Amino acid sequence: MTGGGDCPGLNAVIRAVTKTAIYQYGLEVFGIEDGFMGLVQNRIHPLSANDVSNILTLGGTILGTHNKCDPTRYPVTDSDGNTEFKDVSDRCMDHIKHHELDAIIVIGGDGTMSGAANFVRKGVNCIGVPKTIDNDLEGSDITFGFSTACMVATEALDRIHTTAASHHRAMIVEVMGRNAGWLALHSGVASGSDIILLPEIPYDIDKVCQAVLNRSKHGKRFSILCVSEGTKPKGGELVVDHIDPNSPDPIRLGGVGKVVATDIEKRTGIETRTTVLGHVQRGGTPVPADRVLATEFGHAALQALMQGKENRLIVMQGRTVTDVDLLSAEGKQRIVKLDNPILQAARDVGTSFGD
Amino acid sequence: MTGGGDCPGLNAVIRAVTKTAIYQYGLEVFGIEDGFMGLVQNRIHPLSANDVSNILTLGGTILGTHNKCDPTRYPVTDSDGNTEFKDVSDRCMDHIKHHELDAIIVIGGDGTMSGAANFVRKGVNCIGVPKTIDNDLEGSDITFGFSTACMVATEALDRIHTTAASHHRAMIVEVMGRNAGWLALHSGVASGSDIILLPEIPYDIDKVCQAVLNRSKHGKRFSILCVSEGTKPKGGELVVDHIDPNSPDPIRLGGVGKVVATDIEKRTGIETRTTVLGHVQRGGTPVPADRVLATEFGHAALQALMQGKENRLIVMQGRTVTDVDLLSAEGKQRIVKLDNPILQAARDVGTSFGD
Amino acid sequence: MTGGGDCPGLNAVIRAVTKTAIYQYGLEVFGIEDGFMGLVQNRIHPLSANDVSNILTLGGTILGTHNKCDPTRYPVTDSDGNTEFKDVSDRCMDHIKHHELDAIIVIGGDGTMSGAANFVRKGVNCIGVPKTIDNDLEGSDITFGFSTACMVATEALDRIHTTAASHHRAMIVEVMGRNAGWLALHSGVASGSDIILLPEIPYDIDKVCQAVLNRSKHGKRFSILCVSEGTKPKGGELVVDHIDPNSPDPIRLGGVGKVVATDIEKRTGIETRTTVLGHVQRGGTPVPADRVLATEFGHAALQALMQGKENRLIVMQGRTVTDVDLLSAEGKQRIVKLDNPILQAARDVGTSFGD
Amino acid sequence: MTGGGDCPGLNAVIRAVTKTAIYQYGLEVFGIEDGFMGLVQNRIHPLSANDVSNILTLGGTILGTHNKCDPTRYPVTDSDGNTEFKDVSDRCMDHIKHHELDAIIVIGGDGTMSGAANFVRKGVNCIGVPKTIDNDLEGSDITFGFSTACMVATEALDRIHTTAASHHRAMIVEVMGRNAGWLALHSGVASGSDIILLPEIPYDIDKVCQAVLNRSKHGKRFSILCVSEGTKPKGGELVVDHIDPNSPDPIRLGGVGKVVATDIEKRTGIETRTTVLGHVQRGGTPVPADRVLATEFGHAALQALMQGKENRLIVMQGRTVTDVDLLSAEGKQRIVKLDNPILQAARDVGTSFGD
Repeated sequence: MTGGGDCPGLNAVIRAVTKTAIYQYGLEVFGIEDGFMGLVQNRIHPLSANDVSNILTLGGTILGTHNKCDPTRYPVTDSDGNTEFKDVSDRCMDHIKHHELDAIIVIGGDGTMSGAANFVRKGVNCIGVPKTIDNDLEGSDITFGFSTACMVATEALDRIHTTAASHHRAMIVEVMGRNAGWLALHSGVASGSDIILLPEIPYDIDKVCQAVLNRSKHGKRFSILCVSEGTKPKGGELVVDHIDPNSPDPIRLGGVGKVVATDIEKRTGIETRTTVLGHVQRGGTPVPADRVLATEFGHAALQALMQGKENRLIVMQGRTVTDVDLLSAEGKQRIVKLDNPILQAARDVGTSFGD
Repeated sequence: MTGGGDCPGLNAVIRAVTKTAIYQYGLEVFGIEDGFMGLVQNRIHPLSANDVSNILTLGGTILGTHNKCDPTRYPVTDSDGNTEFKDVSDRCMDHIKHHELDAIIVIGGDGTMSGAANFVRKGVNCIGVPKTIDNDLEGSDITFGFSTACMVATEALDRIHTTAASHHRAMIVEVMGRNAGWLALHSGVASGSDIILLPEIPYDIDKVCQAVLNRSKHGKRFSILCVSEGTKPKGGELVVDHIDPNSPDPIRLGGVGKVVATDIEKRTGIETRTTVLGHVQRGGTPVPADRVLATEFGHAALQALMQGKENRLIVMQGRTVTDVDLLSAEGKQRIVKLDNPILQAARDVGTSFGD
Repeated sequence: MTGGGDCPGLNAVIRAVTKTAIYQYGLEVFGIEDGFMGLVQNRIHPLSANDVSNILTLGGTILGTHNKCDPTRYPVTDSDGNTEFKDVSDRCMDHIKHHELDAIIVIGGDGTMSGAANFVRKGVNCIGVPKTIDNDLEGSDITFGFSTACMVATEALDRIHTTAASHHRAMIVEVMGRNAGWLALHSGVASGSDIILLPEIPYDIDKVCQAVLNRSKHGKRFSILCVSEGTKPKGGELVVDHIDPNSPDPIRLGGVGKVVATDIEKRTGIETRTTVLGHVQRGGTPVPADRVLATEFGHAALQALMQGKENRLIVMQGRTVTDVDLLSAEGKQRIVKLDNPILQAARDVGTSFGD
Repeated sequence: MTGGGDCPGLNAVIRAVTKTAIYQYGLEVFGIEDGFMGLVQNRIHPLSANDVSNILTLGGTILGTHNKCDPTRYPVTDSDGNTEFKDVSDRCMDHIKHHELDAIIVIGGDGTMSGAANFVRKGVNCIGVPKTIDNDLEGSDITFGFSTACMVATEALDRIHTTAASHHRAMIVEVMGRNAGWLALHSGVASGSDIILLPEIPYDIDKVCQAVLNRSKHGKRFSILCVSEGTKPKGGELVVDHIDPNSPDPIRLGGVGKVVATDIEKRTGIETRTTVLGHVQRGGTPVPADRVLATEFGHAALQALMQGKENRLIVMQGRTVTDVDLLSAEGKQRIVKLDNPILQAARDVGTSFGD
């Protein structure tokens, strides 16, 4: 089962699990469609080795996924047309028993693992494979999908670079990362961005503008800013909404990239443009490193199962794939620390972090 | 001189002009910095063959560019600090004479060619090389930069495709094209987009939603929409601004991509997301086809000059590079016609154009 | 039916033919497997719109192909185990009648079209879609697959460039092109190769070495050579084989790239390395331009059929897709002429063609 | 100083060292051209921050490199034209003293580090940054350049895949790796290669053919083989040369890829083609991971220097950049062990290693 948002490498995990199970252990494998939704609706079908042939390079997930289905609060409509939220976990358990599933390999993020915990309590063995494009899983040094996102973001930053240089502009590229700035840090360093803003380091707009102007003084008439979507200014909340007294809902004016751009233009007079990369960062064919990593994770999940382990989460520690308690990472996030060596290297080669 | 917005292939033109001039004709070549701005400010320097070595693969322009400089309305500040807009064309003419320039090869769009016309009237021979990433130059079947933009847009659509398929969403990708839909048409067809919206075909939101729902009915639970930024709805202006009585300026809520997404969600209940590609489409290393085309255009410009031609614009007709009057394309735009064979092929393979 | 070697865009043709036939005309479509082999062996199966969904971006051909099957000389083994070559065209005709095929759309090269002519004589309407990665079809200004091959070759040349520059070496990249040098010309110009060798221009090794040494003299301590596999030296056959009196067969020492490298090293003392690109040039996902072109060609083939045309070959003339007699291009090849404008532009920017 | 073969990331190291030295510590930095050759010939020049601007994405090395220069055996020609090999280390020491170099940061492989040891013995502090595209440095879990080589090899394998599938062929791709199979293992797993042959696992040609035939039996009429150039058959040397009694030198017939292809064709009758990737694997713009890693390594080298360390080699242990004795890795190679988890995962998903 795959749950949560798209992430390059999901199919590589599905392939590794299925092929190892069939070729190595002679097991029967079933795919659950669209995350917990398929468990509720009994959309569960056998997976053969052929079904997972040629999917290694494919983005997305052949099983489909669903972001918001929670079997403990599932909308049920009665004959009168009234919808109520009910706990349909027992219905899921019936489906699990019907297909005689010995265990479920759950590929997903925080939310999916919490959902799995519900079934663990009912006696279902769940082995988790973590999926976070933000690379912010506490307990794992890297997760699949991240390298692909880095490649996409860096390629965009490389392209933006020439435009900035030709036009003498500041260009802002807003990348993913709500709570952790791994993607901004890595793609920012990889692209030689002049300023990198992370959620972990609230920015001082004066320092940001100073960095832009400093470059101008040294004859570089452009600046590239790589900004995590979750970045916030020092000592204050980001104002990205406009409140209209006549309008019921606040109006979204754009993310932090837009806010920073407006501020730079106002304070420095330098033309500043923003690009929000959005969904292209999480789709498409995975880079080789993610295909290998996802294969390792899928294989390790099956191995853990066959070694009799229960309710474990596969992680990478250093260069070693291992496993931890399924829920050990719940609610925790691996963030960029201030003494991170890549961050320090970036500072020393002249990158500003806006602080 | 390069003017106007960034476009992959500008450096290839500069290289072809310079190398042909030096190697083939023993001429001296000068580069004018930042478009007309460099002409006003006398930032004009010699270009050697070495200066243009290794720039063929480089995005942007080594000469720099400036979007808005018009020598006939140039801001001049007097000793009292008052700024007035004055015609500084004579100052430009002095600089042209000072460097003994026999002709100017002007690489740019509509605006740049109009600017050049001003100097043509003063007796300067200008050979134009057209630059339009939108590929909408009347009189030329293709212009450089377009193939690169197509590649970038198609790669993004390919990536988005897997996300859409995994999540059963409608995904909208908004690409460049204010008045002409070439980029949306080509990248939409190349990526197998289900719905393509062009400025040339005002869309009927009912038809768009129908197309999305039709796919659902046939078991395809996702749709990809490729939308030109300049697309408009049938019989009405696009409402992209929110007017707040308390706010002096209208508030930009996003482009047509966002508007269509909101409408689809409301009418079909299908989750719809928008990605605006933005500046990544016009920066970065050109694809091989653009490097070849830009080399041909640059070479043809120099050839035209050496054949004694005056005030011509280089264009591609069929598969032949030729030249037309410098201003013959002014104010006209090559748009996608309804009987365009690619458009017809797309319709016949099942693509909806929202009409 | 697809015949002959692999070429990016084959699946895009299959998709366009199938979807147009089904959606637009309500026809039934059948796929013939592995070229004429499938016709002989009756491996012919229905194709639905779903079967061709998601294949637009896929390299290769979902129908399979076979290089060497000729139904007029097909190996048949009798009960005694003796193999004889027989004409099994009638067997093919039976299969065509059995499936009630009204026409065959044949996607392939010269050999495949000659094979089709055999069935034309028997009264089968064949519409040809030309496939040549070498882009050398007489009568068509461009064919699909070529742009992808250009991209792959240019990317390789770009990578090789940095190695050459760092090591002060001459680097030779041998690209496809037995009789026509289109790929070497386009990828050579796109990559800024210093020397381009084509089958159309027999090279003078003295001139080649001179060009390499000239660059050395001007402080460029490396040279990039882009060489068609079919290139030959002036006034002589290429010696690529070594004859050993003790060995029954001549020994292949490598292609022209290797021969030129050995000669340059001997004569100039400059270290020279060769890379033969090989099959990577013809496989993999097509670039957007090839996806669009292949879609147009497939659509045009079906249109021609529905307009009652018979035995036509789809071609591109200028920017217009049209059709010519199926066999009009047989045995003829479109080669690079000496007054080709890209070739002339290349010469004028300083590229040597070894003549 | 950069020595040895090309490797993506060299410029990123040079940039990180130079910018950190100048911005952070106010040092003067000099670049030595073409490895030890520049030290002998006193081609040593100052490097400014501007000199290393915009080189992060550039393949190769702006300092140039030389494969074979050894100052202890340097060819010196006297006035009579006789060349003798002499130790010119003292001349190098003079140049080092003349420029008042406090330390040399030496970027290179095994050979370069041995060369550096010579100067260490003469009292020069050398900090080494390891460079091996084969990723086989004992003591470092990963080195820069490897991820880029993986990407190039995997992209080629992906392209080859579609050709193999369309033609029902076995396709062999020979990748770099003389003594260690890291590249074949990673790109083989990333591309889903059916058979992977490594130097560490001598192959049994019967097992290789069996694997190819097994796939045929299961309806997969093609196989992809990813083969390290250094692979050898079980119990025997590889015969890649042909000895002609009339020829002074043995004749190279091609590498292991060709040998395996010939054997498969002979034994199985299945058409088999080989592609040798060659130099494209080591040139060109580095992938983001290599840009980040090379930046970290360069920064760490300068840090080590400023912390007063002497004669250290920068390495990556787990996820931590650290340093070891400069010569600690000399003559040792990190090879793929049989219990490598990626290798085991590959086996379990059905990959054959020919043993």
